[in-house]
Amino acid sequence: MRAIGQQARAAARVLAPASTAKKDAALLAIAEAIRVEAKQLRHANEQDLQAGRDTGLGAAALDRLELTPERIESMAQGLEIIASLPDPVGVIADLTYRPSGIQVGRMRVPLGVIGIIYESRPNVTADAAGLCLKSGNAAILRGGSEAIHSNRAIGRCLERGLEVAGLPASAIQVVQTTDRAAVGELLKLQGYVDVLVPRGGKGLVERVARESRIPVIKHLDGICHVYIDDQADREKAIAVAYNAKTQRYGTCNTMETLLVAQSIAAEVLPDLAARYREAGVELRGCPKTQALLEDITPATEADWGTEYLAPILSIRIVAGIDEAISHIEAFGSQHTDAIITENLGRARRFLTEVDSSSVMVNASTRFADGFEYGLGAEIGISTDKLHARGPVGLEGLTCQKFIVIGDGHIRG
Amino acid sequence: MRAIGQQARAAARVLAPASTAKKDAALLAIAEAIRVEAKQLRHANEQDLQAGRDTGLGAAALDRLELTPERIESMAQGLEIIASLPDPVGVIADLTYRPSGIQVGRMRVPLGVIGIIYESRPNVTADAAGLCLKSGNAAILRGGSEAIHSNRAIGRCLERGLEVAGLPASAIQVVQTTDRAAVGELLKLQGYVDVLVPRGGKGLVERVARESRIPVIKHLDGICHVYIDDQADREKAIAVAYNAKTQRYGTCNTMETLLVAQSIAAEVLPDLAARYREAGVELRGCPKTQALLEDITPATEADWGTEYLAPILSIRIVAGIDEAISHIEAFGSQHTDAIITENLGRARRFLTEVDSSSVMVNASTRFADGFEYGLGAEIGISTDKLHARGPVGLEGLTCQKFIVIGDGHIRG
Repeated sequence: MRAIGQQARAAARVLAPASTAKKDAALLAIAEAIRVEAKQLRHANEQDLQAGRDTGLGAAALDRLELTPERIESMAQGLEIIASLPDPVGVIADLTYRPSGIQVGRMRVPLGVIGIIYESRPNVTADAAGLCLKSGNAAILRGGSEAIHSNRAIGRCLERGLEVAGLPASAIQVVQTTDRAAVGELLKLQGYVDVLVPRGGKGLVERVARESRIPVIKHLDGICHVYIDDQADREKAIAVAYNAKTQRYGTCNTMETLLVAQSIAAEVLPDLAARYREAGVELRGCPKTQALLEDITPATEADWGTEYLAPILSIRIVAGIDEAISHIEAFGSQHTDAIITENLGRARRFLTEVDSSSVMVNASTRFADGFEYGLGAEIGISTDKLHARGPVGLEGLTCQKFIVIGDGHIRG
Repeated sequence: MRAIGQQARAAARVLAPASTAKKDAALLAIAEAIRVEAKQLRHANEQDLQAGRDTGLGAAALDRLELTPERIESMAQGLEIIASLPDPVGVIADLTYRPSGIQVGRMRVPLGVIGIIYESRPNVTADAAGLCLKSGNAAILRGGSEAIHSNRAIGRCLERGLEVAGLPASAIQVVQTTDRAAVGELLKLQGYVDVLVPRGGKGLVERVARESRIPVIKHLDGICHVYIDDQADREKAIAVAYNAKTQRYGTCNTMETLLVAQSIAAEVLPDLAARYREAGVELRGCPKTQALLEDITPATEADWGTEYLAPILSIRIVAGIDEAISHIEAFGSQHTDAIITENLGRARRFLTEVDSSSVMVNASTRFADGFEYGLGAEIGISTDKLHARGPVGLEGLTCQKFIVIGDGHIRG
C-alpha cells in the first residue's frame, strides 16, 4: 500500500496543475472505454455475481453488485456529466487591493490524494474516479472484495482513459488485492493520503474515523425530521410529509420522525396517517398521537433516535416550534430537517436555530442531494462540521489557498 | 472538564443565534471591563511574574508573560476592532432557484464549541475569546499555568462583559486549574468540543494532533522560501528578499531559505549578502553560493528543512523555476512561498504549482498574516488543507450549512 501511496502522491503533483481540457479529455476517454468494454465489464461482473451466489449473498446485495447494461451506460454518462461541469480548480476569488498595496485573493486548489473506501456497488469506482479526476486529485479506490473483478475491469477503463489523455495512469489506482489488511494499511497512509471518504454502512464509517489519523469526510446517521407548524398550509404539509417518508425508504435523507404542532395535529394527522397506511408505512406515535389516531404502536425513547431506513415512521405531537427544535437537537443527527409553515418569522428561526447540514422550509427532506442542489454530482454527504457540510461535490474535494500579488512590496 | 464541556455546549446553543448587536455589546463591555480592571490585571500579572522569576523563567518567557499598561490597552482595542468587523454568522450565499423550483443556498453558521490551548501570553485569552464570541462560538480557554493569575483575572472581565450583554457567562470559560491532566481531559471532550486550536510550540501542536480525535486547526512549521527568478527586477528582488528575512526573525512567515536562479545570482547575491551581514544574518550556502560569496558556511541537507526562527539564512542557487518549485516541494512546509519575477508566465506557474497556504508574487512572505490579508484578526495560521488554510479569522471559525426554501415542493 505504501507504494500505491507514493505513486498517488507523485501523480497528484501532475494532476493538480493539469488543464481542464486534459482532465475532460480523460473523463470522456474513460466513458468511451467503459462503453467499448461493456461486454468485458459484464463478464467480470458475472464472476463477482457467481461468487456472491456461491457464498450466499442476499438478493439486495446481489442487486447492488450487478452491472446491468443500463448501469454501465449510466456510469459512462455520469463521467460525461462530470466532464461538462465547471472546473473548480484555479478559480480565484475576492482578489482585493489591501491598504499596503498588495492584492490578496484565494485560489481554489485540489486537496491532493483522496482515499475512497466503499462497499459493494461497482459503479462507485467510476463515479468517485470521475469526481477526483475533475477536481485535480489523485485517488486510491478500495472497493468491496465481493466486487473485485468488476472493479478491476473498471480500473482498466480508467487507466486507458488517463493514458489516452496523457495523464499518469497512477492518478486513479484501484486497489487490486482483496486482502482485508489493505484497508488497515490505507488508513495509516498519512503523508500520502490527504483525506479519506468512506462510503458504506455505519460500521465502515466508524471504523475509518476511529482507526485513521487522516481527515475523514464522513456521513453517519440520517435521522431527518419534518416539523408541521401550526401555521402550516394543510395541503403543503401533507404533500411534503408524505413525500419525505415514502418517496424512498432506504435513503439517508428520508424523514424518520414527523413532528406536528398540537393545534394543527387533528387537522393533518388523520389524513396523513391514512395515506401512510395505504403506502404500507408502520406508524409509531407518542401518547398524544395515540390518542388522536387509532391502532398506533407506542413510540419508545429508542424510536426517536433510530434511522429506520424502512417503511416505519415515528410521530410526535409537540407544543410548537420551541419543542420541535429541542426535539431535533436532542434526537436528530444534524443531517436534514424541515419546517412546514407559512409564517416568515418561524421559518427564519428554524433556518437559523436548527444546526443541521441541510435546513429546509416547505420542501421535502428528499431534496438533500448533490444533484438536486446543483452540485452536478456528489461523492457523499458530510455530517461533519469542518470543511464540507452536507452534499459534497467537486468543490468539497478542493480547498482555497491564499495568493498575494505585489510589485516588490515589503512589510514595514 | 466534562462539566465545562457540557456548559460550553449549552452556551453554544444560546450564542449561535445571538444577534450581532448583542455579541458586539459583549465585546465592548469586555473591553471596558479590561480598562476598568487594568490595575487588578497588573496585580494578578505581577503574581505570575514573581512566580516565574522564582522558578527561573528566562527573560524572553517573562517578557511574553508580562502585561504592561500598553498591552492591556491593546487587548481592549483588539476587542473593539473585533466588534467593528462584519459578523460572518447568518450570511446567506448563492441562494439560487433550481429547476425543481426550490431555492438552495448556504448559510454561514458557528462551529459550536472551540477549545483553545495556548502557552504563556495572557493576551491570547482576550483575543481568542473575542474571535470566538463574534463568530458565535462558545470557547474553552486553557492557557499556560505560568499565566494562571493573569488569565483568571482576564476571565473575570470576560464574564462581566458577557453578563452585561445578557449572554451566558459560560460562553467563554477560562479553565481555572493548572493541573496538567486538564489538557489531556480537554483533548478527549469529543461530543462537547467541535474543534481544537493549539497555539504554541511545535511540541504542543503535535501533542494535541496526536492525542485528540477532535478536529484540530493547527500550525506546524513555517519553512518559507523566496525564489528570485532570472527575470526578476533586481531592486525588487533585493528589497523583498531582505525584508522577508530581516523584518522579524522569530515569526513563522519569515523566509528561511533563499533560492536564486543561476543566471541572476551574480547580479543580486553579493549586494544582498552584504546587507544581510550588516544586519547580522548568518549565511549558509550551497556549493555554488560558496563559490560566489566569500566566507559562506556550507549548508547541509538539514539546513533546507530547518525553521531557524533566528538570524540565519540558507541560500541555494538553482537552474530555474523548475528546480525552485521542486526544492520547495521537497523541503518546504506548505506555509508561505514567494517568487520574484517580472515574467507573467512564471508568476502564473508559481501561483498554480506551489502547494502552500500562501503563494506570493513580488511580495515579502512577511505579509502572510490575518491583519495584512484583511481578515481583521486571526486565531492562528493553518498549515492543514481541510477547512481553513493559511491565516484563520472569523470566517475560519464558521462553516456553511445548506438551506432550502420551497413552497410545498416534493421530490418526484
